[in-house]
Amino acid sequence: MAANTFGRLLAFTGWGESHGPAIGCVVDGSPPSLALSESDIQPWLDRRRPGTSRFTTQRREPDTVRILSGVFEGKTTGHPISLMIENEDARSKDYVDNAGKYRPGHADYTYDAKYGIRDHRGGGRASARETAVRVAAGAIARKVLDALVPGGVTVRGALVQVGPHAIDRARWDWTAVDENPFWCPDRETAKLWEDYLDGVRKAGSSCGAVIEVVAESVPVGLGEPVYGKLDAELAAAMMSINAVKAVEIGAGFAAVVLSGEDNADEMRMDNGKVLFMSNKAGGILGGISTGQDIVVRFAVKPTSSILTPRRTVTRDGAEDEIVTRGRHDPCVGIRAVPVGEAMLAFVLADQLLRHRAQIGGFGA
Amino acid sequence: MAANTFGRLLAFTGWGESHGPAIGCVVDGSPPSLALSESDIQPWLDRRRPGTSRFTTQRREPDTVRILSGVFEGKTTGHPISLMIENEDARSKDYVDNAGKYRPGHADYTYDAKYGIRDHRGGGRASARETAVRVAAGAIARKVLDALVPGGVTVRGALVQVGPHAIDRARWDWTAVDENPFWCPDRETAKLWEDYLDGVRKAGSSCGAVIEVVAESVPVGLGEPVYGKLDAELAAAMMSINAVKAVEIGAGFAAVVLSGEDNADEMRMDNGKVLFMSNKAGGILGGISTGQDIVVRFAVKPTSSILTPRRTVTRDGAEDEIVTRGRHDPCVGIRAVPVGEAMLAFVLADQLLRHRAQIGGFGA
Amino acid sequence: MAANTFGRLLAFTGWGESHGPAIGCVVDGSPPSLALSESDIQPWLDRRRPGTSRFTTQRREPDTVRILSGVFEGKTTGHPISLMIENEDARSKDYVDNAGKYRPGHADYTYDAKYGIRDHRGGGRASARETAVRVAAGAIARKVLDALVPGGVTVRGALVQVGPHAIDRARWDWTAVDENPFWCPDRETAKLWEDYLDGVRKAGSSCGAVIEVVAESVPVGLGEPVYGKLDAELAAAMMSINAVKAVEIGAGFAAVVLSGEDNADEMRMDNGKVLFMSNKAGGILGGISTGQDIVVRFAVKPTSSILTPRRTVTRDGAEDEIVTRGRHDPCVGIRAVPVGEAMLAFVLADQLLRHRAQIGGFGA
Amino acid sequence: MAANTFGRLLAFTGWGESHGPAIGCVVDGSPPSLALSESDIQPWLDRRRPGTSRFTTQRREPDTVRILSGVFEGKTTGHPISLMIENEDARSKDYVDNAGKYRPGHADYTYDAKYGIRDHRGGGRASARETAVRVAAGAIARKVLDALVPGGVTVRGALVQVGPHAIDRARWDWTAVDENPFWCPDRETAKLWEDYLDGVRKAGSSCGAVIEVVAESVPVGLGEPVYGKLDAELAAAMMSINAVKAVEIGAGFAAVVLSGEDNADEMRMDNGKVLFMSNKAGGILGGISTGQDIVVRFAVKPTSSILTPRRTVTRDGAEDEIVTRGRHDPCVGIRAVPVGEAMLAFVLADQLLRHRAQIGGFGA
Repeated sequence: MAANTFGRLLAFTGWGESHGPAIGCVVDGSPPSLALSESDIQPWLDRRRPGTSRFTTQRREPDTVRILSGVFEGKTTGHPISLMIENEDARSKDYVDNAGKYRPGHADYTYDAKYGIRDHRGGGRASARETAVRVAAGAIARKVLDALVPGGVTVRGALVQVGPHAIDRARWDWTAVDENPFWCPDRETAKLWEDYLDGVRKAGSSCGAVIEVVAESVPVGLGEPVYGKLDAELAAAMMSINAVKAVEIGAGFAAVVLSGEDNADEMRMDNGKVLFMSNKAGGILGGISTGQDIVVRFAVKPTSSILTPRRTVTRDGAEDEIVTRGRHDPCVGIRAVPVGEAMLAFVLADQLLRHRAQIGGFGA
Repeated sequence: MAANTFGRLLAFTGWGESHGPAIGCVVDGSPPSLALSESDIQPWLDRRRPGTSRFTTQRREPDTVRILSGVFEGKTTGHPISLMIENEDARSKDYVDNAGKYRPGHADYTYDAKYGIRDHRGGGRASARETAVRVAAGAIARKVLDALVPGGVTVRGALVQVGPHAIDRARWDWTAVDENPFWCPDRETAKLWEDYLDGVRKAGSSCGAVIEVVAESVPVGLGEPVYGKLDAELAAAMMSINAVKAVEIGAGFAAVVLSGEDNADEMRMDNGKVLFMSNKAGGILGGISTGQDIVVRFAVKPTSSILTPRRTVTRDGAEDEIVTRGRHDPCVGIRAVPVGEAMLAFVLADQLLRHRAQIGGFGA
Repeated sequence: MAANTFGRLLAFTGWGESHGPAIGCVVDGSPPSLALSESDIQPWLDRRRPGTSRFTTQRREPDTVRILSGVFEGKTTGHPISLMIENEDARSKDYVDNAGKYRPGHADYTYDAKYGIRDHRGGGRASARETAVRVAAGAIARKVLDALVPGGVTVRGALVQVGPHAIDRARWDWTAVDENPFWCPDRETAKLWEDYLDGVRKAGSSCGAVIEVVAESVPVGLGEPVYGKLDAELAAAMMSINAVKAVEIGAGFAAVVLSGEDNADEMRMDNGKVLFMSNKAGGILGGISTGQDIVVRFAVKPTSSILTPRRTVTRDGAEDEIVTRGRHDPCVGIRAVPVGEAMLAFVLADQLLRHRAQIGGFGA
Repeated sequence: MAANTFGRLLAFTGWGESHGPAIGCVVDGSPPSLALSESDIQPWLDRRRPGTSRFTTQRREPDTVRILSGVFEGKTTGHPISLMIENEDARSKDYVDNAGKYRPGHADYTYDAKYGIRDHRGGGRASARETAVRVAAGAIARKVLDALVPGGVTVRGALVQVGPHAIDRARWDWTAVDENPFWCPDRETAKLWEDYLDGVRKAGSSCGAVIEVVAESVPVGLGEPVYGKLDAELAAAMMSINAVKAVEIGAGFAAVVLSGEDNADEMRMDNGKVLFMSNKAGGILGGISTGQDIVVRFAVKPTSSILTPRRTVTRDGAEDEIVTRGRHDPCVGIRAVPVGEAMLAFVLADQLLRHRAQIGGFGA
């Protein structure tokens, strides 16, 4: 499988650089006859779109998606769906001064060392701009899930920690998520973040974040032991997002300090269905979905583009200092919420197709 | 790619159940002419082998590996290497009483729900016994790394936390790792764990653990952006190990509370080579190795087999209680150390071959 | 995908050399709960088995297959099925004299040139002995087809030409196929071949053959345009069999001399079902099965092991002559019949699973 | 691997329908730093372009290719190369009358039966228009071959039979190929074809053809036994081209009537290099290139769009007659020559990368 293809049966192949003419992807493997138009994809892109608040990069991209193939008279045909988003507000000249210097924490050095050539404008292929195509592909995955799972699947996410400030989970309210520029489910913490991030932004600094994405109404049985486990693929999906350094499922690292008694979710029956009495497992046992909520958290490191001068080296092997100009997010984790949701939806839809192949479909 | 194949160019296809006649794997894609015999693989299996201390399962398996193909006159031929380990001490009758009950925290329920059939003896395919073949495949990966990277690559691991007790990193000493039954790099903490685990074992309980695996002398440039990133594949590799619930690279979740200034590793020159002044990145930027140590940590949940009765349900939909008999590890994380090392070695070797394909080899 | 794995969702990974301890394969992706035991596989292996008539190699191999995993209480579990066949009658010493000489028409030279190392005993990995595992995997594919297609699918084959002697298709009788040692569907031609092949054998020479394999009752719709077309995968499947040099579907090369009017199969209705009035297409249009018989023919070149001295070169770059000893088939095409059937069955079963994934299942 | 991706390490993912806004592909896996611009691709597209003589479809498409990613300052970056060709002269209304009728010999029926939905305009995804992206991808493959094989690789093709009229191989002259509208290497036969095809065209009929594609200066050693054999992948590559019904390598079907003595290519030494005294093998033994010319032939069936009324059925299950309007090639095989060349180049380049991965590079 090629390096820029994600997924096995439902798969997307991404392409494009931050400052090239466009970015896009080809989504292959969709079932036919799903209603699909740009208006099914655009709202998800709008959520990820830069420039919508002072807490994200001021690059202004309409991120208008175009479907170039695979849809006929408003329905998927079962053939590859080509999606394209043109780049409009790319200011390449911001990058000229630093073209020969490796920005610490960025992929500049490793791209150059590996390929011997690098599109330095805005990070090129390594730019978080690439994640827009994930969100577009994720929108199609949501259509697949809703078409094939009776009752549909809900996939949503939230920001649960910014720098040192975690939310209070007791105040979790999904309706709050769309009311603040952080996708924060805890209104009080959202206010705190606003102040905190204003400080970070004004200092020309940056901070990290933790994102939690959740899938509800997932059928029991998704996942392919032992190397195509649902959690293994989710871990790869999240870790492949720019700046992500950690992933956990359910209790995650916190499970280490639990006893076996406290960690293993007990089961009862509830109207003929299995009922778990807790969800330490995050909805996955043995790499297969349990029917409980799938709960995935991932950590995004602080944005590496900062205004404080940092020591670095140049392409030519000289020592130097660098200040990263360009328009950036003080907390790139904010915009990672819709990306994480999209990846969760995509992995589930891909696993669903594989489940259909080996086992058959769900429901009536 | 099939569900039981791991890797792309260097790949192994695993097979076998805990209580079947044997387990094994087929390793495909190895370069030819590497010296290889059972004695290159057996020592690594012996490290993972059960029954070597009172802190691991008392199942006594010699875990003797046999090479059935792909080696001629002591050298790899470039053709698939079939490895087989016979099961000897499988006590299936331990599992008869509980055959119809779903053990909480185990894959019993999900396997049954997905497949409608389940080899209940010792967990069948979901048993941690499967990880022996990973260790065997990892031994071949080590040979590949050492053959293709001038100077070789060192891959090793340690247990860094058991239950609530983390090591003191200031006391880290790699030579300590082989001196205690926990692969603990901190001699003092190892003593503490001994007492702690004796308590856990006697209580019929269990606890979790954190493993850290490290690869040293990895060449710059391994990793395939953007969906075959080195860290994404490592995340999948570790998360696919039984009972793993979290994975992090470098600073991991701790990066969230750092500032951008503190997190981005600065660079200097050192005798014509790039020198990083810290390693928050864990040796990976933009999905590509930086040449620094690759540092991966993962969390193993508490063993789900415990002696305290737990509420559960049966295959037939009745509520019941269960006490898990059988011979188990009070802290299954201990034996995950060699497994994590093997997976790290395997991902690196596979990425190395892909790097050779696209870019070429590493210097003479 | 690794070089020794065939198939995408239903896949087998083969291993083993002609004169090693055993050969085998791992079949992954089978649906669960199919009844399966060695007795489902052994009869197909017995058909391919060497030493059953004077027209095939005198190597005596019982070719006894053992299932090592993936089956529990007589049913598939959905997990990998490991199959092993031990080699018993390998006479490696037959090959010692020629170890340093490249046998014309064999893979000796190319294997050595590519890998720099070669198991010269009996062709090693390049031996037709490898095809036994294809037949075993094909037996499982037949079970999958019969389980998932209402009414089942019939896959069978015949030898239709030996050297210059083609059958008379007007005399085609499937019941004749099992009555002669050639799988010949034309009793009269079978007699002719007997004389002809006795002559070839006594002359220490060899001849080629054409095999036709047919699948009946295949559902409409199998095949994945445009690079996973059913015919494209069948072409690869047959061409990957040892000594095969040509593959055609339906009218094949003969379609070239037809007019468009004669070649395009017209359609009528028959009791509410589409009826094709001919089958020039060989049951495949646009890479998708039409519901008609799938008809594939392939050509096997004359066995390269012959008793006439031939000019060749040695490993060391010296010119030499060679007479190929060892026990061989004068017409290796004969034993290719069950292999071609197996590959046809396997491709169909794999495509069937992919169809289920994207489109859904067949029938009530 | 998804159905619209071809290749393993060098891979292209195709998209687009005959009458949609555009067609294109994403080429992934290219080595970095290859000089590449549209002018490297356009000439190959121009060779395949429709409307260049009265013997091919009169649809007028400039087939102008645009590179959207993966190239920076004139060189490949190692990241995905997105290619797009806009459709300009699509006359969808030609297809309206027949929208509900299945054209015999076309994929109409099978697409509808499989997907339940079909873009009927010009064949949609099943149109030969798709092959333009193969030619574009093939142009990149040629760059890869020339960059990685010292001295470069020559890939070219010719039409060797039209209907019943085969060329005289004694008159084969590569310089003739570009002098006639048929890519015919035999000037006399080209004249004969001109008359013959005028007759076919005027009669509203069609005929088949045989294409031969040849790769010269291919290094020894390309191919991955046993299921990734070079010939197996070439067979799949050619059979996946629209209307192809047969593929052969070297002597192909003609090998069947040869004796083992005549078929096996003998070897001598020539200035320290192995010299084959004939090339019945078509440059491939055991699935690996021998260093001789790779010779592949494939048969294209007569164009199914003809002016004679043919019996068919409709989507609704009624019997009917059909005359295929639209602009078509009387012998679609003519334009298959550059497509076959492209597929040959692509398979070789992909195998070359896999060879580099497992074995290493070629040359100094």
